[in-house]
Amino acid sequence: MSQEKMVTAITSMEDDFAKWYTDIVKKADLIDYSCVRGCMVIRPYGYAIWELIQKQLDERFKASGHENVYMPMFIPESLLQKEKDHVEGFAPEVAWVTHGGEEKLTDRLCVRPTSETLFCEHYSNIVQSYRDLPKLYNQWCSVVRWEKTTRPFLRSLEFLWQEGHTAHATEEEAKEETIAQLNEYADFCEKVLAIPVIKGQKTDKEKFAGAKSTYTIESLMHDGKALQSGTSHNFGDGFAKAFDIKYTDKNNKLQYVHQTSWGVSTRLIGGLIMVHSDNNGLVLPPKVAPTQVIIVPVMQKKEGVLEKAEEVLKTLSKVCRVRLDDSDKSPGWKFSEYEMKGVPVRIELGPRDIENGQAVLARRDTGEKTTVKLSEIEKEVISLLENIQSSLLEKAKAHREAKTSEAKNMEEFKKVLETNQGFIKAMWCGNEECENKIKEETGATSRCIPFEQEHIGDTCVCCQKPAEKMVIWGKAY
Amino acid sequence: MSQEKMVTAITSMEDDFAKWYTDIVKKADLIDYSCVRGCMVIRPYGYAIWELIQKQLDERFKASGHENVYMPMFIPESLLQKEKDHVEGFAPEVAWVTHGGEEKLTDRLCVRPTSETLFCEHYSNIVQSYRDLPKLYNQWCSVVRWEKTTRPFLRSLEFLWQEGHTAHATEEEAKEETIAQLNEYADFCEKVLAIPVIKGQKTDKEKFAGAKSTYTIESLMHDGKALQSGTSHNFGDGFAKAFDIKYTDKNNKLQYVHQTSWGVSTRLIGGLIMVHSDNNGLVLPPKVAPTQVIIVPVMQKKEGVLEKAEEVLKTLSKVCRVRLDDSDKSPGWKFSEYEMKGVPVRIELGPRDIENGQAVLARRDTGEKTTVKLSEIEKEVISLLENIQSSLLEKAKAHREAKTSEAKNMEEFKKVLETNQGFIKAMWCGNEECENKIKEETGATSRCIPFEQEHIGDTCVCCQKPAEKMVIWGKAY
Repeated sequence: MSQEKMVTAITSMEDDFAKWYTDIVKKADLIDYSCVRGCMVIRPYGYAIWELIQKQLDERFKASGHENVYMPMFIPESLLQKEKDHVEGFAPEVAWVTHGGEEKLTDRLCVRPTSETLFCEHYSNIVQSYRDLPKLYNQWCSVVRWEKTTRPFLRSLEFLWQEGHTAHATEEEAKEETIAQLNEYADFCEKVLAIPVIKGQKTDKEKFAGAKSTYTIESLMHDGKALQSGTSHNFGDGFAKAFDIKYTDKNNKLQYVHQTSWGVSTRLIGGLIMVHSDNNGLVLPPKVAPTQVIIVPVMQKKEGVLEKAEEVLKTLSKVCRVRLDDSDKSPGWKFSEYEMKGVPVRIELGPRDIENGQAVLARRDTGEKTTVKLSEIEKEVISLLENIQSSLLEKAKAHREAKTSEAKNMEEFKKVLETNQGFIKAMWCGNEECENKIKEETGATSRCIPFEQEHIGDTCVCCQKPAEKMVIWGKAY
Repeated sequence: MSQEKMVTAITSMEDDFAKWYTDIVKKADLIDYSCVRGCMVIRPYGYAIWELIQKQLDERFKASGHENVYMPMFIPESLLQKEKDHVEGFAPEVAWVTHGGEEKLTDRLCVRPTSETLFCEHYSNIVQSYRDLPKLYNQWCSVVRWEKTTRPFLRSLEFLWQEGHTAHATEEEAKEETIAQLNEYADFCEKVLAIPVIKGQKTDKEKFAGAKSTYTIESLMHDGKALQSGTSHNFGDGFAKAFDIKYTDKNNKLQYVHQTSWGVSTRLIGGLIMVHSDNNGLVLPPKVAPTQVIIVPVMQKKEGVLEKAEEVLKTLSKVCRVRLDDSDKSPGWKFSEYEMKGVPVRIELGPRDIENGQAVLARRDTGEKTTVKLSEIEKEVISLLENIQSSLLEKAKAHREAKTSEAKNMEEFKKVLETNQGFIKAMWCGNEECENKIKEETGATSRCIPFEQEHIGDTCVCCQKPAEKMVIWGKAY
């Protein structure tokens, strides 16, 4: 298959962004569909990306004192109902187990959509004294939400995620944890995924079912749509009261604990695709690329070519995730295959290169090629990988800047959405009616009330009454 | 709490083995119960053991070319029904999802009890040519089997496991893979879990639903009962025919693939407990101990004690998983706490030790104490951990030897089961009727036809007709 054939095989994102996206998830071998509606088969290449995300996040969680646990995947209906707002939010979108074998269950079980209720039951068993606090738990698992329309990684019936659940002695500590984990997510997105995010608080309308306050990181995709990329919730003592989670404090007085939860999911892979990739396929930041460097020998049957390629492989194996493709496919086929798969660096190595003691490095993000000395290849590759990692972040930041606008009234708001869809900064009076009206008239929702506030004006973009909060708005996935 | 109080808090295994077991899983903080029948909360200490098992197995799988994937957790009833033996074996023990939100499903979904059918569907999509083979996939996930009576780790409604699923061009290759993975499990059990196992083939009666042949590793617990610790199945082309998984061979002819699957689960943790632990609590082999060494300062308020303890902590951190307990609990409380949790080595360090430039090392498995020079503590600890790891295996081997008997007829068989319950080696004619009769009359089942055959006699232990196969029999978990 020639390089051209491979490239034209993807729909261009300008022609049809949704089609471009699904072309990439399929053709980069990230997922396969199955007969299970709305669920995906995550293939080895896709799963390897998830393992890299998981490993790096897990190290961060453990470094800040969190411990992994595993909770049952089922929640009895009676347990789910203990916190009123929570059950109202989730019951309509859960899968119900009604039979075990031949036996009909008296208390239906839902497949966990999230595990607050199970953690609460467990905390009520194991927390007695202030000495038992804080509890800083996390679990990696899959959850199910019965979505009507689904898209791989972005919104699926089942997805993989981590859910942190913590219990603290004081309101203060719980709030600190909520923000600390949001900051951890933001730092991870920028440093590892090369995705810039806006940190902020969700409005009451958009917050998690049962939370006192929800914080979010929001990122912007190629097409100008927003992706909620991670959330962190402060529950106050709401769940503690519903589940009777009390501890004896230092003065021997019974107190309710204060709780948080926070999660990110395989949705981050969807974000990676829609922030970095292009019309040749996937583009991956080196830190989450299963293969960071692919060595493609040219005229590999010529004496000495494969030997040299293996030497380079051996050298580079010490410093990065590198592979050598010595299959009998043509170099052109290989070039487009690894472009499609988003391998950050390609090394071309032919007889003439070897003669001159050099190799060609091609970077996936810009297509740029440089010739480097074989004797310095280790150093050159490390530096190129670092360079790609940081340029992807810079490029994504610049794109977001270009797609961020301000609006002072609804006319401006609508115009901006039409001409340069992206984030819109606008003042908001705090009234849910205005939020609803904006959504109805434009399709945009409040993404967050960013921590970094700016003064865009004195009045609400919608009702023109006095407004103090700047909100980031946008159409969202 | 004094040391004595802690120790008497466990039922002794001689008094009540089942109670001793559940006391350990609870008091070593491995699990907690929840309101979800038959499911367990795996607590941080228990989950850390699982993570160590998982990490070391995963490295082995990857080293032999296997790749991780993730399949949907649901299997539509219509898909499950495609392979006749398979559905007959599993349908009676699955959890059925019948509703998604408010919607009633037309095709019920079962929560996966195992994922052969999903892997088959996927393979039928992605395998076309001999170039696509072999596919060597594995997934880490949770599965559900609707068991009536459950016990933590040993038999639970939901459990964590890995399931390998592979597809090969030839029957030969599939058989090799089946055996290779069984050998991998056996090696892992011996070298990492310090559990000796017997490798062999299951009889037709005991094989996996849908398999051509099932291989197993069987281990022996303290109480003389057997634990099936891992299985590996050769499917031949049975599933391939049911799911139409065909490839074009080198001669351009369509052929069915040959498949295998193999799995181990959190049940291994149950095995660890019942092979190594004692009446003071859990005993863990160093290779799966979340904390390998605990430093307990004595008279820690005396000047210099904590400083020295932290120095030792820092030194040892480079070579093992070590913790320092400097909480204000008494050394006696700490001694029994870490005994209960099975920490392989305890270091006692008091003012007099420090004065003499020494520390006391106490090993969990034998209780033996030795005094070592602080200047040599790194070397001494490494060697002690290695020693514990190998003595646990030797001890378990000796125990199994002592509990393995031979029987030539049913009288001997029954007598042995009463006087020295364990593995029984006996000849078998190959007839399922004899297998059934032995089970009815004694409660023992055929554990496996071991690869290493011995000649115990010429006739079947049950019917006394000519017999060529030696079978290992035993009561099993």
